Amino acid sequence: MDDSIERSDAGQRPGETRFPQPESGYADAGLVFIGRIRSPWTERSACPKNMAKARETGRPATVELDAPWRAALAGVAPGAAVHLLTWLDRARRDLALQMPRHAEAPRGTFSLRSPVRPNPIGLHLVRILSLDIETGRIGIDAIDALDGTPLLDIKPYFATVDVAREIGEGEPGWMA
Amino acid sequence: MDDSIERSDAGQRPGETRFPQPESGYADAGLVFIGRIRSPWTERSACPKNMAKARETGRPATVELDAPWRAALAGVAPGAAVHLLTWLDRARRDLALQMPRHAEAPRGTFSLRSPVRPNPIGLHLVRILSLDIETGRIGIDAIDALDGTPLLDIKPYFATVDVAREIGEGEPGWMA
Repeated sequence: MDDSIERSDAGQRPGETRFPQPESGYADAGLVFIGRIRSPWTERSACPKNMAKARETGRPATVELDAPWRAALAGVAPGAAVHLLTWLDRARRDLALQMPRHAEAPRGTFSLRSPVRPNPIGLHLVRILSLDIETGRIGIDAIDALDGTPLLDIKPYFATVDVAREIGEGEPGWMA
Repeated sequence: MDDSIERSDAGQRPGETRFPQPESGYADAGLVFIGRIRSPWTERSACPKNMAKARETGRPATVELDAPWRAALAGVAPGAAVHLLTWLDRARRDLALQMPRHAEAPRGTFSLRSPVRPNPIGLHLVRILSLDIETGRIGIDAIDALDGTPLLDIKPYFATVDVAREIGEGEPGWMA
């Protein structure tokens, strides 16, 4: 989560702005937690701020997939790159502008990978190191999420749709 | 959504398997819809099955971001590649194994990008063509989602964390 912000309170830093309306009153939809992340990171201050920093630690992690969902791992194999979607359950959801520690001015939530967002869904591209369908344990190379973070989805990564080409090289915007 | 399956009923194809327990009874969390996709695709049968096919159509699309969330676009600019997360509200959620039309055997849900999954969250990497914070209208190059699909999040794309290097070239698994 690039540019994430450590905070345990509901306060704001100078320049930060809250969304103008409460969370209630909008249409919503229900998520189901299908498992959880087991990571070395039990304290927010120790948790890597993005996947690059998570990999730099050299610490692998584990996904625990709950029993009802394990059959859906058929066809997923070690070596594969997958997107994990998680529910960042310890993140607040109310900031429209945020002040990352390294920034000089507040930035819009949608320009950041901070866990603080209207729907605190984490997107993590990881490599599968091991996989046991029976127990639902999936070894992954690294993770930038706290131990116990709920899992929402596992999606295969496809370079044909998941990589953006730099603008300017080849076609206007896209892909190998 | 690679390998997606057109179906309007709750039935199964031979070899498909449902998750063994009902959706209720698991911990869950609430989403808020922050806007919606405006796309040319009003019929499931016409909707491109993935972002590559969506781009091939040459048809751009629009994101409508609702008023409370528009301030969070600060720092997002045309030309940027962003991940959109959507709520695929017309997808069923109960299949563990699915039979894509092109497949010879059923495949696990987590090996597919089908919209049918326990949490039907769509992940779409798009290019921003235009952006108006006042109205919340964001022009994008293409989308593989039905018109009216609810929006959950907009995340900036960073090649440092969102690209998987092919295994074998360079370090074991990762990055440019």
